[in-house]
Amino acid sequence: MGSIPARSGLVTAFDELPPFHPLNDDDVRSYLHKAVDFISDYYKSVESMPVLPSVKPGYLRDELGASPPVHPAPFDIAMKELRASVTHSTFFKACRLAGFDPANFRSIPTGPETDYGVDPVKLLAAMQADAMAGLVPTYVCATVGTTSSNAVDPIGDVAKVAAMFNVWVHVDAAYADSACICPEFRHHLNGVERVDSISMSPHKWLLTCLDCTCLYVRDARRLSQSLKTDPEYLKNDASVSGDVTDLKDMQVGVGRRFRGLKLWMVMRTYGTANLQEHIRRDVTLAKMFEDLVHADDRFEIVVPRNFALVCFRIKTTGVRAADEVNRLLMANVNKTGKAYLTHTVVGGRLVLRFAVGSSLQEERHILSAWELIRKTSSEMMN
Amino acid sequence: MGSIPARSGLVTAFDELPPFHPLNDDDVRSYLHKAVDFISDYYKSVESMPVLPSVKPGYLRDELGASPPVHPAPFDIAMKELRASVTHSTFFKACRLAGFDPANFRSIPTGPETDYGVDPVKLLAAMQADAMAGLVPTYVCATVGTTSSNAVDPIGDVAKVAAMFNVWVHVDAAYADSACICPEFRHHLNGVERVDSISMSPHKWLLTCLDCTCLYVRDARRLSQSLKTDPEYLKNDASVSGDVTDLKDMQVGVGRRFRGLKLWMVMRTYGTANLQEHIRRDVTLAKMFEDLVHADDRFEIVVPRNFALVCFRIKTTGVRAADEVNRLLMANVNKTGKAYLTHTVVGGRLVLRFAVGSSLQEERHILSAWELIRKTSSEMMN
Repeated sequence: MGSIPARSGLVTAFDELPPFHPLNDDDVRSYLHKAVDFISDYYKSVESMPVLPSVKPGYLRDELGASPPVHPAPFDIAMKELRASVTHSTFFKACRLAGFDPANFRSIPTGPETDYGVDPVKLLAAMQADAMAGLVPTYVCATVGTTSSNAVDPIGDVAKVAAMFNVWVHVDAAYADSACICPEFRHHLNGVERVDSISMSPHKWLLTCLDCTCLYVRDARRLSQSLKTDPEYLKNDASVSGDVTDLKDMQVGVGRRFRGLKLWMVMRTYGTANLQEHIRRDVTLAKMFEDLVHADDRFEIVVPRNFALVCFRIKTTGVRAADEVNRLLMANVNKTGKAYLTHTVVGGRLVLRFAVGSSLQEERHILSAWELIRKTSSEMMN
Repeated sequence: MGSIPARSGLVTAFDELPPFHPLNDDDVRSYLHKAVDFISDYYKSVESMPVLPSVKPGYLRDELGASPPVHPAPFDIAMKELRASVTHSTFFKACRLAGFDPANFRSIPTGPETDYGVDPVKLLAAMQADAMAGLVPTYVCATVGTTSSNAVDPIGDVAKVAAMFNVWVHVDAAYADSACICPEFRHHLNGVERVDSISMSPHKWLLTCLDCTCLYVRDARRLSQSLKTDPEYLKNDASVSGDVTDLKDMQVGVGRRFRGLKLWMVMRTYGTANLQEHIRRDVTLAKMFEDLVHADDRFEIVVPRNFALVCFRIKTTGVRAADEVNRLLMANVNKTGKAYLTHTVVGGRLVLRFAVGSSLQEERHILSAWELIRKTSSEMMN
């Protein structure tokens, strides 16, 4: 504000109010510095912490009052109380939201013959059958690096098939697209020049904190034609002139946080060389784990590893028995609180997932986790 | 990690890699402290900054390289380079996304006779007409504190009408619900016990940074029945047991940031007493501005003020002329860089919006802004 006029004798109820200032700049500085120390101390000691919380669901509810405090709690106490406590599937949710009848979704089954990537021939057959039945194929979603197993669909071939039906082709590369900043992984995107859109989430593997997702579209006008709104109170010279890209016309909501800023800070702070190095390091660590699994006859790799996820399992005769043995191995490893395995089902078989991706992970952690898995398996088999 | 096994002679490509650690805990501490100081300094000097940026759309594009830097830029430099604005309309977007034909949306016109809140009699007439025409009324959205003018719909009466057609009633109270933490504003929610859902956004007026929206639903199962997904890799004992509320089944996406934490910190750090004080302060400041407008014959209040938004305009004969005069006043005020007015259209008339809400706003800023508006108007009228 520029000039400040004298009070001019105006009387308001305001004069009686106690002097509460929501934002005291000295407090801001002091509280935020304390919060930074809290986070820094947490990172420093993260290795000593169990990967599974020691608390049960609902414990925090008992710790909290039924209502918020009437008066402020000291900031230090609030910080102290802090110490306590996984997209493919989302696609089907999105289709339901968009008003498509679930009866009209098609999942193309995949198998080991294509390393669990989609077979374009099967896709073509499914689309042709639908078209013959009088349905209108509308949208194809291919995936590079599925969440479940990191399998990769051949996007160029998928796009060629889709082009016969004039449908929108989207590529979900939420996790794996980060790897494509390295030339040696970029071939997974071959054919991307034929698709309509592709999404990737730097919060998954590019050192950017949750949440940050990039969506690239070939023709942005097709997005804004669907999502444009024009309320009077949002009109301004810049938006009316068309000089700016009005993001409110390209998303569901109106307001948005400036997520691009944190991604920009990450790119600036690390540089591409270090970001590539970070990806290569994780992939090397995953490959190291894969080699350890390969070297032990009792285990098998189920889905060929593409990035930093290893899908493996104990070999046992009989599908049912193998699923149970692997589920038990996972439970026993996780119980230790030293490592945390997740599972998925690939081709009807339960598979264990070993994911490398923590920014603090080192070679010794991989070795120690494998040692834990090996030892736990041996104990179970005796 | 517990025990760390010896290297066991394993040779990997890893040995040759340079020692890049994405997360060095000392760096984290030092960078974050610098970032805190940057933010604190910004707050300290915010009053001296113009409310309109001095740059043109696109200027930043020219400042940036075509590609990210290969090597890291020093953190201080990245920080230095840093120096350099709603929901009724979103509802129609959401309907389109949900697959409803825009031809089937109904907006009930409002006017000064109900202070621009919806008239339940008109709502009933519209729903009856649709039902008679063979349509199925499905969803009614009432608003408490519309973004445009802060008008309030009588939600109890709206819910009674909606109940005759067995439709879902949602209340959008994104901004105004924050005021309802004060008993004197709570009557705006009368009848809320009859609705199916209500949403409010603490990031609008409850000192919580963007983005944080609370959705209350009467029957959470109706949400999860629509949005539930069950991929294998997300199954775990807690989710299977039903002991926990699995938020992935109550939202579009799977992952989410822990927004409840920052709201909790706000409630703890300020306490309800200070939060109520914050709301009352803003409303008192807005009322003060309203009184100033009332006291000047050249101006009128268009929509009765409910919260901290004042909708006013210069009175002039002739609708077209008045719109132009007010638009010019807004442009001239905003050009000064000392205050920023927005506009909306209410009942076909262009109206200026004066919003109180910045956490640093004081009485002197209101007086100074009014003085600026008064002076600018006088200059225009001469």
